[in-house]
Amino acid sequence: MARNKYPEETVNLILDVAGRLFLEKGYEHTSIQDIIDNLGGLSKGAIYHHFKSKEELLDAVTDRMLEESNQKLVGILERKDLNGIEKLRTLFRSSLCRSVQNDIFKTAPSFYNNPKLLASLLYETIELTAPEYILPIIREGIADGSIAAEYPEQLAELISLVANVWINPMIFDNSEEETYRKFLVFDQMLKGMGLDIVDEEMMARMRELTAIYQRSK
Amino acid sequence: MARNKYPEETVNLILDVAGRLFLEKGYEHTSIQDIIDNLGGLSKGAIYHHFKSKEELLDAVTDRMLEESNQKLVGILERKDLNGIEKLRTLFRSSLCRSVQNDIFKTAPSFYNNPKLLASLLYETIELTAPEYILPIIREGIADGSIAAEYPEQLAELISLVANVWINPMIFDNSEEETYRKFLVFDQMLKGMGLDIVDEEMMARMRELTAIYQRSK
Repeated sequence: MARNKYPEETVNLILDVAGRLFLEKGYEHTSIQDIIDNLGGLSKGAIYHHFKSKEELLDAVTDRMLEESNQKLVGILERKDLNGIEKLRTLFRSSLCRSVQNDIFKTAPSFYNNPKLLASLLYETIELTAPEYILPIIREGIADGSIAAEYPEQLAELISLVANVWINPMIFDNSEEETYRKFLVFDQMLKGMGLDIVDEEMMARMRELTAIYQRSK
Repeated sequence: MARNKYPEETVNLILDVAGRLFLEKGYEHTSIQDIIDNLGGLSKGAIYHHFKSKEELLDAVTDRMLEESNQKLVGILERKDLNGIEKLRTLFRSSLCRSVQNDIFKTAPSFYNNPKLLASLLYETIELTAPEYILPIIREGIADGSIAAEYPEQLAELISLVANVWINPMIFDNSEEETYRKFLVFDQMLKGMGLDIVDEEMMARMRELTAIYQRSK
């Protein structure tokens, strides 16, 4: 393989093109060949040198999409004007309402046909979202008395799993109505554990994202 | 390929050998070649004619292991001496305590390295366990007043997902202590939704199965 003096530029170019095509045509309707055809002479080998599969491309595209707004989410963890439960509520609302979610749901991958994508989302939820975003807030809520939990690690995992995986309409190809009902049952589950987090705004936003996914798939 | 007059006998022979090796050596430490070597002259092609991958073999081995005891579980749904919540409790206890679970946990596959196995378990949980085992009981409990739920389909999914996937120590390679804590949080979640199902016997059994898995992997 020819040496590439600017691998980062190549990666960015690939992600630009892949990201644009995933948004325009949807992930399932975009082939690696489509991406090559839009890369102006870059070879298949050059793509596979950086990304082993279309799943890896989507992971990288999504990570780049979320990078900026994830930093804002981390900022919530550091705010001094909110207690634990308020931070949890703000984190949920901000994560759902950030505009980049429209793009994520527009790519509309079929997790059913992509076990590797599914596994990657599930393990990222348990190994990254739960310990790095949710757990520190739960610990803070326990310390300030706004959250009661005996096993914060497990509670963080449960909440993350239900919110990121089960309620995600892309994973089980849910309708707006099904997603709305899941959200209501999630709310009931949370309230039963003393966590009043979900509000009407979040529910309406979840319906909106589900509608975007259903139109795009 | 030579025609086989007795395909069912061939399938059973393959499953006998695969099942025995998965139990003796563990799923991860058994190769397709190991299975062929123990099949007395059957070719690789003959196995792949019936099973496309080692994952499919494990699915079939597990299905056959569970077949008999699953019929007993279905019998619980038809009992006249139990109300809805009692049936849910009995179903959970019977499912956990049946001896075949020892063999299931002894095969100890690494779901982390097998996205297809993970996807198959997740979708089976949502598309089979929830609607066919849990949902009818929840509906019955709503009718007899022992269970309160506004969205029975979603509640059945949530319970099945948490019990079958999240608490399953094979999926996240959990220790006995971690699994025990998950079970306690699951109990708290259920009680918060008015469902008193879990008891000490089930928790002890879950620890036992986790220990079997941890020794076998």
